[in-house]
Amino acid sequence: MTAVADIGVVGLAVMGRNLILNMDDRGFVVAAFNRTTAKVDEFLAGEAEGTRVVGAHSLGELVGLLEAPRRIMLMIRAGPAVDEAIGSLIPLLDDGDIIIDGGNSLYTDTIARTARVEAAGLHYVGTGVSGGEEGARHGPSIMPGGSAAAWPHVRNLFTSIAASVDGVPCCDWVGSDGAGHYVKMVHNGIEYGDMQVLTEAYDIMQRGIGLSHDEMAGVFAGWNSGRLDSYLVAITADIMRTRDDDGEPLLEHILDAAGQKGTGKWTVISSMELGQPVTLVAEAVYGRIVSSLLHQRAAAAKALSGPEPRMRGDRDELLSDLEDAVYASKIVSYAQGYMLLAAAALEHGWELDFASIASMWRGGCIIRSRFLGEIMEVYTEDPGLPNLLVSEFFGSAVDAAQAGWRRTVARAVGAGIPVPAYSSALAFYDGYRTARGPANLIQAQRDYFGAHTYERVDRPRGEHFHTNWTGSGGDVASTTYEA
Amino acid sequence: MTAVADIGVVGLAVMGRNLILNMDDRGFVVAAFNRTTAKVDEFLAGEAEGTRVVGAHSLGELVGLLEAPRRIMLMIRAGPAVDEAIGSLIPLLDDGDIIIDGGNSLYTDTIARTARVEAAGLHYVGTGVSGGEEGARHGPSIMPGGSAAAWPHVRNLFTSIAASVDGVPCCDWVGSDGAGHYVKMVHNGIEYGDMQVLTEAYDIMQRGIGLSHDEMAGVFAGWNSGRLDSYLVAITADIMRTRDDDGEPLLEHILDAAGQKGTGKWTVISSMELGQPVTLVAEAVYGRIVSSLLHQRAAAAKALSGPEPRMRGDRDELLSDLEDAVYASKIVSYAQGYMLLAAAALEHGWELDFASIASMWRGGCIIRSRFLGEIMEVYTEDPGLPNLLVSEFFGSAVDAAQAGWRRTVARAVGAGIPVPAYSSALAFYDGYRTARGPANLIQAQRDYFGAHTYERVDRPRGEHFHTNWTGSGGDVASTTYEA
Repeated sequence: MTAVADIGVVGLAVMGRNLILNMDDRGFVVAAFNRTTAKVDEFLAGEAEGTRVVGAHSLGELVGLLEAPRRIMLMIRAGPAVDEAIGSLIPLLDDGDIIIDGGNSLYTDTIARTARVEAAGLHYVGTGVSGGEEGARHGPSIMPGGSAAAWPHVRNLFTSIAASVDGVPCCDWVGSDGAGHYVKMVHNGIEYGDMQVLTEAYDIMQRGIGLSHDEMAGVFAGWNSGRLDSYLVAITADIMRTRDDDGEPLLEHILDAAGQKGTGKWTVISSMELGQPVTLVAEAVYGRIVSSLLHQRAAAAKALSGPEPRMRGDRDELLSDLEDAVYASKIVSYAQGYMLLAAAALEHGWELDFASIASMWRGGCIIRSRFLGEIMEVYTEDPGLPNLLVSEFFGSAVDAAQAGWRRTVARAVGAGIPVPAYSSALAFYDGYRTARGPANLIQAQRDYFGAHTYERVDRPRGEHFHTNWTGSGGDVASTTYEA
Repeated sequence: MTAVADIGVVGLAVMGRNLILNMDDRGFVVAAFNRTTAKVDEFLAGEAEGTRVVGAHSLGELVGLLEAPRRIMLMIRAGPAVDEAIGSLIPLLDDGDIIIDGGNSLYTDTIARTARVEAAGLHYVGTGVSGGEEGARHGPSIMPGGSAAAWPHVRNLFTSIAASVDGVPCCDWVGSDGAGHYVKMVHNGIEYGDMQVLTEAYDIMQRGIGLSHDEMAGVFAGWNSGRLDSYLVAITADIMRTRDDDGEPLLEHILDAAGQKGTGKWTVISSMELGQPVTLVAEAVYGRIVSSLLHQRAAAAKALSGPEPRMRGDRDELLSDLEDAVYASKIVSYAQGYMLLAAAALEHGWELDFASIASMWRGGCIIRSRFLGEIMEVYTEDPGLPNLLVSEFFGSAVDAAQAGWRRTVARAVGAGIPVPAYSSALAFYDGYRTARGPANLIQAQRDYFGAHTYERVDRPRGEHFHTNWTGSGGDVASTTYEA
């Protein structure tokens, strides 16, 4: 076998196939392999016909087709299959060769795999790839992390196939070991949040305001020409316009049970582990869970009452307030996502560049938007900004939107239309901007029932006090009871 | 050494000491050990003076003091210390002896420890103990799980020292391996929720309505004589009345940064893993996290504006609506907690008895309340009830409370007072009782950008459809891309 290919790709599902065609378009020679080898032949005779893509029918053949240092990208299902593929590849590869995982792997797996592959003398790259099938085909957002020594060898390839905005590729080195997959995980969590935010808007427009699908399409299209300009808003407008064969809106024939594959849950679990208040994403994940309880909801709808889901008021005002709610909630969600990134960077020793992350996300991926360009600018101006919400740009933006946001939540609450994302984001905003909150009561309760002690506003941090609230019981502070 | 004691207790922090004194009161002879043995002597010469408590200065001595089958209860910090203690005890014990962990261990640790201890021919009991120092001293709620063969040997001891309500001890066998600690974990999660719910009430009363501490004490005391009758409401009234040395309310000298020790986070993580919408507990945990960000909040308070935190309206109406919000939110939180228990029972093969769990919780523990007696009745009447919310009792209760609940949330949202627990619970309620929700949009979006497919309302479940929304792109459904 002669080394003829620039990169090998393992896995010919939709993302793998589209990435290969994208690489081919950009002048790279790709060797393609799939465990079910019939798929290789199908692909070569089908979508890849007329390209320079080379097929391989075994991993050994694939490896033989690659120039050194070899670059092999796994586009396979996240989980044990990735470990198996790594185990099969290690004996076939030479020092300095690079294994790339382009799936949605859990970042802790990527941390472990980086160590395993580096111990074998190879390099490992765990990279987020976002953009769905269209993105993969024409330019995704690519978030690579892992062995820093691999970056010079994949940089040209990745930045060539990635989307770009204003000439800047939506791909940059994120950090060591699991950093790339972590950033992709948070991207997906934020994506869950954005989708929930738009779904609440749909519910309000349809049930609360009574808009037709064409009217909703118009509203989303209008939003897409302003501050909410984004891929998800654009496709939502498209979806509203799409008719089924019977001429009815296709959307209404789709079952209202949202699926999920794990990255949203992982984001929330990580937020709990790192102690960061990613409330909007959590509500989005819970929202999908509630949606999946179809039988329970059907039964509950019969047993539980509520107000008529109608919002009163001038239609244009209702819609303008709704846009404010969408925009302000989105700002809070991104602020929360960046809080999580900052905590993860500290925890894992990653030197995350927040402007660069926004830059990677502003094109190619599912959450791409004008908004992310603004986040990039804000972090470029002040890389040490403690929180997006206290930047002048986003602080003013939330301030301008908050009256409509509040009215929207109040109306939805009155009309019985669930807006967990808007209300959770608003509660966070109000809690975050309150210098003196009410959690002193929680500390008093914990000291009362568990002798957990409290700190005082008139004493330095780190001094702990216990009050014998009941007059009975011991004076000893608790060291084992947890609540 | 002669076997003289009924049980050995390891660990003389506040919970261990109080449990020992409780056991002594009930006629059990306790052998007490602590790794720092000076604490043993201190205890014997102090609080335990005049009791039949026997001191031990080594684990070997402790074991020698116990009658067979030996029962040794660890009241030590959850985590590696428990594994170390088990490792030290196993070689000292004989077949059929029982190791009991009474700390707040993570249930997955308890599952692993049960297997380890049983493999050594011993029995293991992981038990939740709730009630704080007072409960431990005078009658806690005890939630034991683990080796079923151990139950006959600890039953009398546990039910004797536990609290009781109407003559029924707040202790019953929960299930195998980690079941007891799981139920205790959910108890603690619910406790976080209850505390957050009361904390939001405090914030509204103080900032929104302008009540004094004596007035707030009166409101909480009033609630405590009705449907909200509970330990946490009672102590909150006490706390409102408590004055510092300077005559000012002590509460206002306490720092508003809530601590936590992990069981709330664990509950939320488990809810994500099991796909159950425990939204109120999640908001409570996030609320504590936000409270701990003192510096960030101080900075944000300067940068971010909001409305005056004043609620307009008749004071009695505001307070009556607030009581409705507290009560309805609490019902939702318990309904969510029971959803989580049901899912965990399925996942781990535990045959949880929901009425029995409510019975254990209705006395002795931090969340004890009249309310839990009602939950016990509801599940006793219908053990197969699919959800607390669809029971006649709680369905009617929420219905009666919902108008005030909605007004309270709307007012708080307008006044800029954060009510994440009330609003999250309300969003869940409204989502749960909606037969046709808006998540069809999420499925449409996922199919649009990721070819994730959707199901249709006019086709059976399990049939998956993909639409080529853009007219370009492939017709292949995604099998690897996750979002």
